[in-house]
Amino acid sequence: MTTLAEVAARAGVTPATVSNVLRKRGKVGEATRQRVLDAVDALGYRPHLTARALAEGSAPTLALMVSSIANPFYPEFALAAERAARKNGRFLIVCNTNEDPVIARAYLDQIAGTLSEGVLVMNAKLDFEDLEKTLARGTPIVLCMWERPDVSPGVPCVAVDFFAAGTLAAQHLLDLGHTRIGAIVASQRDGVQAARYEGFCHTLHEAGVAHLEEDVRFTRDEVQHGYDAACDLLSAQPDLTALFATNDLPALGAMHAAADRGMRIPQDLSVIGITDIQLARESRPGLSTIAVPTDAAAAMAVELLEALIESGGRDQDAPMRVAPQPVLVQRASTGPVRS
Amino acid sequence: MTTLAEVAARAGVTPATVSNVLRKRGKVGEATRQRVLDAVDALGYRPHLTARALAEGSAPTLALMVSSIANPFYPEFALAAERAARKNGRFLIVCNTNEDPVIARAYLDQIAGTLSEGVLVMNAKLDFEDLEKTLARGTPIVLCMWERPDVSPGVPCVAVDFFAAGTLAAQHLLDLGHTRIGAIVASQRDGVQAARYEGFCHTLHEAGVAHLEEDVRFTRDEVQHGYDAACDLLSAQPDLTALFATNDLPALGAMHAAADRGMRIPQDLSVIGITDIQLARESRPGLSTIAVPTDAAAAMAVELLEALIESGGRDQDAPMRVAPQPVLVQRASTGPVRS
Repeated sequence: MTTLAEVAARAGVTPATVSNVLRKRGKVGEATRQRVLDAVDALGYRPHLTARALAEGSAPTLALMVSSIANPFYPEFALAAERAARKNGRFLIVCNTNEDPVIARAYLDQIAGTLSEGVLVMNAKLDFEDLEKTLARGTPIVLCMWERPDVSPGVPCVAVDFFAAGTLAAQHLLDLGHTRIGAIVASQRDGVQAARYEGFCHTLHEAGVAHLEEDVRFTRDEVQHGYDAACDLLSAQPDLTALFATNDLPALGAMHAAADRGMRIPQDLSVIGITDIQLARESRPGLSTIAVPTDAAAAMAVELLEALIESGGRDQDAPMRVAPQPVLVQRASTGPVRS
Repeated sequence: MTTLAEVAARAGVTPATVSNVLRKRGKVGEATRQRVLDAVDALGYRPHLTARALAEGSAPTLALMVSSIANPFYPEFALAAERAARKNGRFLIVCNTNEDPVIARAYLDQIAGTLSEGVLVMNAKLDFEDLEKTLARGTPIVLCMWERPDVSPGVPCVAVDFFAAGTLAAQHLLDLGHTRIGAIVASQRDGVQAARYEGFCHTLHEAGVAHLEEDVRFTRDEVQHGYDAACDLLSAQPDLTALFATNDLPALGAMHAAADRGMRIPQDLSVIGITDIQLARESRPGLSTIAVPTDAAAAMAVELLEALIESGGRDQDAPMRVAPQPVLVQRASTGPVRS
């Protein structure tokens, strides 16, 4: 690899002059400047990012840690975060933890603050202790899409009111006349999607509509798991007229399950999800869902992370930004209760 | 950030001893070793990856450049590549170019060989000149999923026989009795998916089945574009009994288009794609497709890239590895021609 010294030698100047030209600093005559740029071109020299990062204590990249790059929500979030990062000339690199806390820790140890200036963390399965250690070393972290605006996770975060998302989904089904509504929760009962289910239960309870233990299944956040949970629910509780899933992927699986059982959507069964991923728009029938503000949350997360980077990590409390409220997007998968 | 010197001071040893302990090199007594590890823990020290990378001339990450992280094929490929990279202790970072050659060039300039030891490049829209420049600087690159095993792209690559994939799709439809088959090509006529269409045309021609200029549409590689192209084709050529799409995403769009026109799949219309992404398995009806060896190709690409890294870029020709042949996966979206 070409060095600064080689460029300097070819241009007949000092390395400091080459550096000044490349950084647009100091006073350099036009002829000298041109000679340096010609030497840079001729030798294929480029400023060594890692060296510069070491010298300046920073590299112009942000890392986004996601728990499962196969979940289509994360690429959508990554796209939005990347757009936001690029505004200030930063690159976004995506690291996939495969839902493995050990890999998450390795990324934090190896990449945070060295290969990247700061880290955006999705609700990855990781130990908060690891996040706190990384913060303690002075590397800014922002937890994205934190699900409970009313409770601080103890690290900087952007929160989305997922309890409200659950209430909106329940209210929509109640408005359509449904009173026998099954629930598919795509996490453990006390897992990351618990707030969504609590919002749903709260609204049914307020409306005086019973929701029994037999009407809910806890599963994983994948189409196939939603399919299996729906098959199980619809067999056990044939009087259900609607299914609420805490995420779009299991909602799509629930639609497939209904179709495979010969049920028409929405005439025989209404299905609603949460998030509004692209697949919700592209499925047939289109999936009614509670849209969360993905683009806004991503932009807010990048903005908060950049502010933390600028402040040199001196902000000792854990700021929380709350993204705009979720909204109902009604499509063809929900309709009036069957008579 | 804690330095090696601070760890050494706390442990009462020289920095060289700390380094030896951390790298498991040299002879260090057990008591000393433990004292160093205690100091590392107490101070929260971690080896500075960037510094080490500078010293050793390498960093243990590979970069994967994709043209559109929103295309679900890329996350599937990224997962497989990551599994392969991890075997040798390397991390995979994903960089999204948004199909923008300028962004692709920026990644190559900023990241190749500095933040990462080598670069996997998907069929991103980028100038081969940029790839060659990066190679000339000594940074290994492997082009993944190159579509023409019979033609070298001039840079190291893993090729998949997409011409064969096109022939298999055509043969499957011919075997089912179809002779009026429309085609949706998800690139320009001379674009990245051209070989697939050529294979399709070749097989129809060999079978003496006419395929007219009016029976094909060239579009973009997205569900919605496949939908639009299928609507257009089915309106213009109502006697078509099957549609071949050069990729699964437009094939899924074509299925939606048929459903929206009241056509039953496969009774009224057979649809087949290429790739076998997860959505092909999860759609209703399941999408028949020609499966390409994504996992094998990703593993081969990582292996080739690592070999190039090991050889220090001294390999001046452009090796090509050819992945296993594509295979037909028949699901419910294809059936005998309607009578």
